[in-house]
Amino acid sequence: MTPYRELTMEQLTEEKTLLEKKFARIKAQNLHLDMSRGKPSEAQLDLAMGMMDVLSSTSNLKCEAGVDCRNYGVLDGIPEAQELLADMTEVPANQIIIYGNSSLNVMFDTVAHSMTHGVMGSTPWCKLDKVKFLCPVPGYDRHFAITEYFGIEMINIPMTEDGPDMDLVEKYVNHDEAVKGIWCVPKYSNPQGITYSDETVRRFARLKPAAKDFRIFWDNAYGIHHLYDDKQDHLIEILMECKKEGNPDMVYKFCSTSKISFPGSGVAAMAASPANLEDIRKHMRIQTIGHDKLNQLRHVRYFKDIHGMVKHMRKHADILRPKFEAVLNILDDELGGLEIGSWIRPRGGYFISFDALPGCAKAIVAKAKEAGVVMTGAGATYPYGKDPQDSNIRIAPSFPTPEELAIAAEIFVLSVKLVSLDKYIAEKAS
Amino acid sequence: MTPYRELTMEQLTEEKTLLEKKFARIKAQNLHLDMSRGKPSEAQLDLAMGMMDVLSSTSNLKCEAGVDCRNYGVLDGIPEAQELLADMTEVPANQIIIYGNSSLNVMFDTVAHSMTHGVMGSTPWCKLDKVKFLCPVPGYDRHFAITEYFGIEMINIPMTEDGPDMDLVEKYVNHDEAVKGIWCVPKYSNPQGITYSDETVRRFARLKPAAKDFRIFWDNAYGIHHLYDDKQDHLIEILMECKKEGNPDMVYKFCSTSKISFPGSGVAAMAASPANLEDIRKHMRIQTIGHDKLNQLRHVRYFKDIHGMVKHMRKHADILRPKFEAVLNILDDELGGLEIGSWIRPRGGYFISFDALPGCAKAIVAKAKEAGVVMTGAGATYPYGKDPQDSNIRIAPSFPTPEELAIAAEIFVLSVKLVSLDKYIAEKAS
Repeated sequence: MTPYRELTMEQLTEEKTLLEKKFARIKAQNLHLDMSRGKPSEAQLDLAMGMMDVLSSTSNLKCEAGVDCRNYGVLDGIPEAQELLADMTEVPANQIIIYGNSSLNVMFDTVAHSMTHGVMGSTPWCKLDKVKFLCPVPGYDRHFAITEYFGIEMINIPMTEDGPDMDLVEKYVNHDEAVKGIWCVPKYSNPQGITYSDETVRRFARLKPAAKDFRIFWDNAYGIHHLYDDKQDHLIEILMECKKEGNPDMVYKFCSTSKISFPGSGVAAMAASPANLEDIRKHMRIQTIGHDKLNQLRHVRYFKDIHGMVKHMRKHADILRPKFEAVLNILDDELGGLEIGSWIRPRGGYFISFDALPGCAKAIVAKAKEAGVVMTGAGATYPYGKDPQDSNIRIAPSFPTPEELAIAAEIFVLSVKLVSLDKYIAEKAS
Repeated sequence: MTPYRELTMEQLTEEKTLLEKKFARIKAQNLHLDMSRGKPSEAQLDLAMGMMDVLSSTSNLKCEAGVDCRNYGVLDGIPEAQELLADMTEVPANQIIIYGNSSLNVMFDTVAHSMTHGVMGSTPWCKLDKVKFLCPVPGYDRHFAITEYFGIEMINIPMTEDGPDMDLVEKYVNHDEAVKGIWCVPKYSNPQGITYSDETVRRFARLKPAAKDFRIFWDNAYGIHHLYDDKQDHLIEILMECKKEGNPDMVYKFCSTSKISFPGSGVAAMAASPANLEDIRKHMRIQTIGHDKLNQLRHVRYFKDIHGMVKHMRKHADILRPKFEAVLNILDDELGGLEIGSWIRPRGGYFISFDALPGCAKAIVAKAKEAGVVMTGAGATYPYGKDPQDSNIRIAPSFPTPEELAIAAEIFVLSVKLVSLDKYIAEKAS
């Protein structure tokens, strides 16, 4: 196909007329399709319905340690849940705390108590003139919302195909004491699906932070969320790597079963060094008497062990893979060669990241919405919702049915084409 | 019986010798009994086992509003859970937010976000030189732990049989802008089992706080936790009362099903004015995508409605009542007339509050522990763990079996007697 930018004014307007007719036809169908959030589909949720049966009124509701899971207590989580989630995120079972249903909540609370009480005895961040976080971009909007909420200055760090630009990360972390954290989704990153390379992880572990209370917020949200059995990314385990490099306390690692069992009713966890965990328990002991142990028990009795969980994730992959491929194939077929956008083929996770021509993302999302397709707001993948290039769009193919997805993807590429045509027409006209 | 203080030195030592023999006999049994925490017993937990069966793999897991409870979303809680907990705490269903498994966590978070972000636009408390909370005493140790954790100065407000000393409350709240809150357990209070009188609630509602961000933290933990069907305390509903008095935003009301369904896996809630709830949603939206809706659904499907819950609470009462009465009867029988302690007969809640002779509480708790009975630490019912009189002891009769409880109560009264005898002997000797 000829790249759009090489077309003449006449060719551009001709193509536009053609596509607008097509767009009008689809718009007339009054569709309502949602590709905005990384939300599992009903078919995926159905996979774990057996979990509703593992605890019954005749079950023994004591955990292995003999504690009655119905009653108060057990701050760290029941031992068998610690083991399951520790295996899931590849850490020792004594280096993990099990929480409630939301790892986002755990991250929020971790930043909140750093604000009010500091980190392992450091000055509370709210007492400092300036606190900064590094934000690999494009990234996860809810991470950025937390740091924005607490008035933390966010600094964009461009992503490369190996992870964040580590030259920049090192420059900031090793020389600016105000830099207290960095948001990372290190495996099948949100939204690009990039897994940090071995070298990137090692450079993280070798950081020499100017601030002793600097922490890597390692959101391992998609640790076992592969799309393929034969093509899987591998991520070096960061806690051990930091320990090896003499930086055992530098990282908080988060994970959850939200996209394994049920998004609303999963189990979240945080892994960290013993010293960090002790610091965290200090405030957790004040905050709660313990999290929902019956739900922890439910998860363990259902999955049994990490092998059970891995097998379960293959079923998720079987549902997700065709959806990702459908979208990617439409992108390839419809946009390949036009040079009006680029995208990455992820091997796992929940998103496809699309980079439009500069200045086109907002218009594309608006255009798609006109025809009934809701996308993540353009800019959402950047701190403060500001994509300096107005280029990145996050595509979330998980929730719609395959049929809906095919139409939604068609509308999306049509929107990309129309907005890109407009851009070139305007440029040529001026 | 002759009051101990009227006994001669000879009578005192004679009694002491006698009781010490008895104490030694019991001590030799090597008992391990726990009257320290307000923890439901196994028999109580068994009451709600049916809840483990209401959701199964064949259940419809959509809430009334049609939302799939397994998936993300629904910040305020599912409508039917809102209705159930709103009825439980006597507020309109649109004035309540349903949370996770712990109301303590909700209170902690409420103080935390007041620290970092203020209340409805007020200066964040962490930016103020001084923040104070009023603490009716004796009170709940975990409340005091939260305010202590955040460096909030706590001011003791003595409890009367009608609730907190309202003259003092008015003096502080209406004239000191640094006073930002008061901890209240208004019904079957922890530990005394006192319910605030109508007049007390009205005086709360009529407060004219010097600080516009002053809030009453109304922890309605025992709202339907009666011990008797025929003798029930009544508490005026505070939200409506505050609204009537032109103070709609002055109160946060907390409750949970921890002592109704399961302490570890219940559902917590907060009721407040629409303006307060909107303020709270502002930070909740950043903190989480939503709480565990399946557990909300489980509660609603099991209890059906408030009537179902009230019937369920009668079963709890049937288990708790004999335990309370056993302890109270032993106190009456063994300590009545000795004038070495006083206590209140509660009509609900989880505790019996015992006031020993001044300076004796710590020694009594230590003595009881010698014989294998763990009580709540003396002082725990006061801010900073400091009971100025060293007099108050909280008795929690819920967890032990009736048989265990009879022995534990015997050991307790024995400890009270021995420590009181020591006190009088020392006084007479000096």
